[in-house]
Amino acid sequence: MTAHGTSVTTSWPFIEACFGRPHDRIPVWMMRQAGRFLPEYRALRQKHSFLDMCLVPDVAAEITLQPLRRFGMDAAIIFSDILILLPALGLEVRFPGGGPELTNPIQAAGDVDRLSELVPESALPQVYEAIRQTVARLEGERPLIGFCGAPFTLACYAIEGKGSKDWAYAKAFLYREPAAARRLLERLADAAIAHLNAQIAAGAAAVQIFDSWAGVLSRRDFELFGKPYLARMVAAVQKPGVPVIVFARGVPPAWLDGIGAELYSLDWRTDLAEAHELLAPAGVQGNLDPAFLLGPRDRALKETGRILEQMYGIDRFVFNLGHGVLPRTDPDTVKAVVDRVHEWTPGQSL
Amino acid sequence: MTAHGTSVTTSWPFIEACFGRPHDRIPVWMMRQAGRFLPEYRALRQKHSFLDMCLVPDVAAEITLQPLRRFGMDAAIIFSDILILLPALGLEVRFPGGGPELTNPIQAAGDVDRLSELVPESALPQVYEAIRQTVARLEGERPLIGFCGAPFTLACYAIEGKGSKDWAYAKAFLYREPAAARRLLERLADAAIAHLNAQIAAGAAAVQIFDSWAGVLSRRDFELFGKPYLARMVAAVQKPGVPVIVFARGVPPAWLDGIGAELYSLDWRTDLAEAHELLAPAGVQGNLDPAFLLGPRDRALKETGRILEQMYGIDRFVFNLGHGVLPRTDPDTVKAVVDRVHEWTPGQSL
Repeated sequence: MTAHGTSVTTSWPFIEACFGRPHDRIPVWMMRQAGRFLPEYRALRQKHSFLDMCLVPDVAAEITLQPLRRFGMDAAIIFSDILILLPALGLEVRFPGGGPELTNPIQAAGDVDRLSELVPESALPQVYEAIRQTVARLEGERPLIGFCGAPFTLACYAIEGKGSKDWAYAKAFLYREPAAARRLLERLADAAIAHLNAQIAAGAAAVQIFDSWAGVLSRRDFELFGKPYLARMVAAVQKPGVPVIVFARGVPPAWLDGIGAELYSLDWRTDLAEAHELLAPAGVQGNLDPAFLLGPRDRALKETGRILEQMYGIDRFVFNLGHGVLPRTDPDTVKAVVDRVHEWTPGQSL
Repeated sequence: MTAHGTSVTTSWPFIEACFGRPHDRIPVWMMRQAGRFLPEYRALRQKHSFLDMCLVPDVAAEITLQPLRRFGMDAAIIFSDILILLPALGLEVRFPGGGPELTNPIQAAGDVDRLSELVPESALPQVYEAIRQTVARLEGERPLIGFCGAPFTLACYAIEGKGSKDWAYAKAFLYREPAAARRLLERLADAAIAHLNAQIAAGAAAVQIFDSWAGVLSRRDFELFGKPYLARMVAAVQKPGVPVIVFARGVPPAWLDGIGAELYSLDWRTDLAEAHELLAPAGVQGNLDPAFLLGPRDRALKETGRILEQMYGIDRFVFNLGHGVLPRTDPDTVKAVVDRVHEWTPGQSL
């Protein structure tokens, strides 16, 4: 196990692939693999609020394990939310249904200085307890991935106070208040680093940083508001044996070079083989469009095969989606895709 | 005038720039330049529903002219909506406030065959009358741009029935029902072509096709569901003297080559000079992030200057935003940017 930052080598294909070491099958997991598309998730959801599901350790652990039982993915990812950090900083978040809402978003430069400092074990003990319980229940069979939001994406929500398509008002704040923007992004990076390190200490064998909205930035602004904070986070959480994955959704792979992650998660707009060449020696993860999981199973398998053909012979590759599993996905299609990745032999009919 | 497809050369800088002919100043207009950020628009909005504003010709004409009076842009764009086509095809759209809603979206392959054929002059006479009135009131001082949505973007709304961030269900329909998808995209292309040609016949001096959501497609799917329909539309509306602009938002410029437009409108994630090299001899339009218009005026002007410096000496360039003007934009900042473009001399302090 790599739970405590030791350099013991495991034989989990997922971890081996993250480091580009030989392994005996292509590892696969799916973003949002625990979620609304699973009947057993919906059954729990009827009894618990969304926040409860994240913050009651045995419920979060149970949800985390649900997809592994059904599908046998190569990694679990702790059931949580990127916004779970914000209340710990003094920004209250509600999940009333149609997306998150902040009651006291950041509106002025001075609001940044009112943010609390995150002391992980006292602010989010439930998350780490959920990780400990999950790791115990996994019994070493599969690694568990911890995760958090990236500073820019967290800042988007902290400033706009709710979801947005273009985050123009969040960006306008960054442009208008560059000094406060830097302080905010640094605060969020500190908090996210502390949160990831606490997840690793609790037993997470890998971590993924979600910069879900970095794709709204120009290259220059990504280099100001996105990349430096991602690079700082990667450096501050990387430990022997514990890979760091960065998912900067919608960002061209050429802009990611130098962040220092073991693996970059990419969406379906990116050519995975080209990205791999650009980012080597780092690896890539992706990139099936989750919309293919809504359609006929043979089409989903054909697209899966295309990705597998394309990545043939590349050790540093993890099969995943380009974004999260969609609520109306048929679990049997997910099963078929996971099986196809595991059973795949190059050149078989697509 | 080029209103009737003649090849008479005008001296409008905007039209000259579209064709890469010499002109004496850098032309500028802004997507959504007529809209909520203008007090005189909000005053009219209190008296009319959104659809009325599009479909009562003298109101639409008045709104179209509002920004030109204030800011002196180099082109007007008819006040309308890309979804105005859908009711004419039998898909009822309502604008209840938080975005459009369709009462009878396309849910099955058979729904495609129930769409009506668009006979523009009988289906949307108000739009063409608004164009005639606007052109008359412009008295030749400025050209008027007509526009419509691209087939893929219209299909997204037609299938999902409301706005979406990722259009996964619309894409899933296209994947699941490829034959119906082709028929739907062809129908929408036919309708959009008829609508643009009727706008040109009514006096539009240029047209812009908005593929607002093409950025959710992979390259292969853009080549299946986006590009061929854009290319077909361009070929079917292009007339001597009447330029066609394509705005496929979020699509990398390399994917656009071959569509045949005079100008490609690009957002702030694209390097405008690189795009110009890729797409030459076609021109480019863009690409100030509208979020800069929300902030301090000097920052907006600095970013404007950067774009102007970058595009120095390139005739086939029209200054624009990378997306529409945002509702909370200060009109005086828009004025300052338009003036800066018009007065600009290379090398002046940014």
